Amino acid sequence: MADVPNGEQGCASPLELFNRIAAQGELVRSLKAGKAPQDEIDSAVQMLLSLKMSYKAAMGEDYKADCPPGNPAPGNDSGLGATEAEEDFVDPWTVQTSSAKGIDYDKLIVRFGSSKIDKELVNRIERAIGQKPHRFLRRGIFFSHRDMNQILDAYENKKPFYLYTGRGPSSEAMHVGHLIPFIFTKWLQDVFNVPLVIQMTDDEKYLWKDLTLDQAYGYAVENAKDIIACGFDINKTFIFSDLDYMGASPGFYKNVVKIQKHVTFNQVKGIFGFTDSDSIGKISFPAIQAAPSFSNSFPQIFGDKTDVQCLIPCAIDQDPYFRMTRDVAPRIGYPKPALLHSTFFPALQGAQTKMSASDPNSSIFLTDTAKQIKTKVNKHAFSGGRDTVEEHREFGGNCDVDVSFMYLTFFLEDDDRLEQIRKDYTSGAMLTGELKKILIEVLQPLIAEHQARRKEVTDEIVKEFMTPRKLSYDFQSFCFDT
Amino acid sequence: MADVPNGEQGCASPLELFNRIAAQGELVRSLKAGKAPQDEIDSAVQMLLSLKMSYKAAMGEDYKADCPPGNPAPGNDSGLGATEAEEDFVDPWTVQTSSAKGIDYDKLIVRFGSSKIDKELVNRIERAIGQKPHRFLRRGIFFSHRDMNQILDAYENKKPFYLYTGRGPSSEAMHVGHLIPFIFTKWLQDVFNVPLVIQMTDDEKYLWKDLTLDQAYGYAVENAKDIIACGFDINKTFIFSDLDYMGASPGFYKNVVKIQKHVTFNQVKGIFGFTDSDSIGKISFPAIQAAPSFSNSFPQIFGDKTDVQCLIPCAIDQDPYFRMTRDVAPRIGYPKPALLHSTFFPALQGAQTKMSASDPNSSIFLTDTAKQIKTKVNKHAFSGGRDTVEEHREFGGNCDVDVSFMYLTFFLEDDDRLEQIRKDYTSGAMLTGELKKILIEVLQPLIAEHQARRKEVTDEIVKEFMTPRKLSYDFQSFCFDT
Repeated sequence: MADVPNGEQGCASPLELFNRIAAQGELVRSLKAGKAPQDEIDSAVQMLLSLKMSYKAAMGEDYKADCPPGNPAPGNDSGLGATEAEEDFVDPWTVQTSSAKGIDYDKLIVRFGSSKIDKELVNRIERAIGQKPHRFLRRGIFFSHRDMNQILDAYENKKPFYLYTGRGPSSEAMHVGHLIPFIFTKWLQDVFNVPLVIQMTDDEKYLWKDLTLDQAYGYAVENAKDIIACGFDINKTFIFSDLDYMGASPGFYKNVVKIQKHVTFNQVKGIFGFTDSDSIGKISFPAIQAAPSFSNSFPQIFGDKTDVQCLIPCAIDQDPYFRMTRDVAPRIGYPKPALLHSTFFPALQGAQTKMSASDPNSSIFLTDTAKQIKTKVNKHAFSGGRDTVEEHREFGGNCDVDVSFMYLTFFLEDDDRLEQIRKDYTSGAMLTGELKKILIEVLQPLIAEHQARRKEVTDEIVKEFMTPRKLSYDFQSFCFDT
Repeated sequence: MADVPNGEQGCASPLELFNRIAAQGELVRSLKAGKAPQDEIDSAVQMLLSLKMSYKAAMGEDYKADCPPGNPAPGNDSGLGATEAEEDFVDPWTVQTSSAKGIDYDKLIVRFGSSKIDKELVNRIERAIGQKPHRFLRRGIFFSHRDMNQILDAYENKKPFYLYTGRGPSSEAMHVGHLIPFIFTKWLQDVFNVPLVIQMTDDEKYLWKDLTLDQAYGYAVENAKDIIACGFDINKTFIFSDLDYMGASPGFYKNVVKIQKHVTFNQVKGIFGFTDSDSIGKISFPAIQAAPSFSNSFPQIFGDKTDVQCLIPCAIDQDPYFRMTRDVAPRIGYPKPALLHSTFFPALQGAQTKMSASDPNSSIFLTDTAKQIKTKVNKHAFSGGRDTVEEHREFGGNCDVDVSFMYLTFFLEDDDRLEQIRKDYTSGAMLTGELKKILIEVLQPLIAEHQARRKEVTDEIVKEFMTPRKLSYDFQSFCFDT
């Protein structure tokens, strides 16, 4: 999984994009002047165009060499510019928005062709499981889906399904945002009582980043400990490193090759923006993230069954992988995986900035002390409050851009209390310092408890989770004859 | 291995190429008229250009829409055309020549940048092994190499090396030509007493052809029986199907990913002629044929040793894979594999035509009866003889284009007798029927003995050869601490 939005690659700022476009333009000119092979020139030009598209998506206006972002273009109607700037850009490596509120998710649903998780679907889930839906569902944090009704049909008809999620282990440092899909997946596992596979794409991180195979694999194992600390059931959960599992499973590689046969370079170029200068590893990787969507990639769990449907909870930026997967599935005789998409977890500095593992102040890390949490929130959490106490009391704060409030929507379980906070902060009755204090009091025990649980995750436990094996689960009449 | 020259894909005739260019031109026009996406148009144009290049390589002149091959181009100096037509075309999927003598191998050595196996090298091999070199070396059938002197240095210094060859199992039907690399590899294994790995690229055949995974794997196992019947030492030989071994080895996939990280689409486009319309499986496959060149792809044999050098005997059309491999090797810290290249085995109809598994008369198959062999040679082997006995007696035959004589250079062990036949046929003392009779008498027992040995290859023996395991061999002080 390319874990950009909750990760450390993040979105390029408009100025960074501007500078990259300028540099790429230089490259194209020098290639042409040096009479470089046509294909190299072509791919440099293609990259240039793609950067310009990203720039336009972020800025709402075309790149102009003499006009860096921030300076209104001469003669440009800035009102019109602002409207166009609403077009966000989302793919597995770049998440870009110019709005402090973050990405416009309703527009994203239309653009990606997925379906909104509406009140009706949340109610149906509640009826199916006989429990209150998770706060991520109640609050629209998981906001979009594909074929979730099909999963519920299956569940109600006592037909089996399984969960699949993943993580790209690009460093040892994980922050709270990385836990969102896992917190939700653990809940899904509990309420539906189904098997779960978790892919650690250490091969992807090796391909994309300046890492050795051993480093990437080491991060996979370290990250697995944080994932296990979310409370997954060891009897129902298989965590695997691609580097390990590819060489340990008769079924996984076969599905990878099947998918690779049915996807062309043109297709991955269109979906992921690959260019001719990309490595053949990157170009073929999407098949590896796709393969766990098919149950016979796990013969130790599902035998040779090819028709156990898969439900994938993930951040919306991973959807391109699974659009490709869903496109291929019927052509190789497999069911399409269903999806539940989450919004992005904002950086402390605001929903339009990026989190960075190399900038410890951009998020709350799972290794932070109580004191670090307090300092970070107080010092760095972007505030929707007014400049002075007097103004704040008079006009109130803006929860839509306030990062402390956003974090509370992720982590404060009590709906009534959250609503009261929203009202009080909006009216001005609650000051920014008070709001931050509440967040600190929520985060400190949450992180401390995570750290305590992680400490209990021994190497033996990790090994057990990561060993290909039969899983035991008890899904009513749900049984696989393997 | 894309086994074209000894296989059934073969080389397109100039007329086939001409027709494909015409069809591709139509496609480009219709894409443009239909305002297709630019990338589709681009890749169609690229394919068109590549076909035109192949055509020019084969014909020695540019494609002209109004002038199919065979008709001299209006105003074209046919003398000049004939000279240019000497340019052959060789890659893993196409082998093309307009000469009845076959490919000009001296030119190929210059073009590929490999080294000729000269008398000096053959003598050095003879000294090193203390035995007469194989007839394939004596007669220039293995004619080109890369770094063979390095292998001999290693051998003389009692340093270990290993052999790697392979086969693309595209059907059950194998013919005598397919055996050439295996006959020679068995000899190398015997005289150097080294371990050998044989890759069955069933994944490649699945990717390139209209086969299911099960069919491709089934052909791999069937072909393995014919390979084993060549007499390989079960204690020193590991045969593997990619589809099997990728999911059974901790080392293989890691090397595949390493290679894939260090090769771009631009590179494989340049080397193999891939286009944007090719599947990502094809595009990334070259890394899978490259990986067995590195010893830690076989931890069960070599432990974690990354520095055991590899010697690859193969037909020259496979060289592009290993040029790529040798380019990548130093960048990932591995030694470059050495190579021994063979010429192509001619079809019965002549060195410039193609063999085809769907045309049983294009070669001698390993399943042919004595009677079939006799009929095929008498009826289909292209003759260098004269039209009448009288003319033949007066002017003599042409061994350079006579397929029966070519086959004898591959299979008749006795140098003196072969030389006598050459003289007698060239002088006209030997008639075509007599020459064919000699070939029939050589081939019939050869095929019968192969069939007898193949019958003894039980499923258990195949399974043993194809099980990842420690190999035992006794290369003087040659020992791996695993």
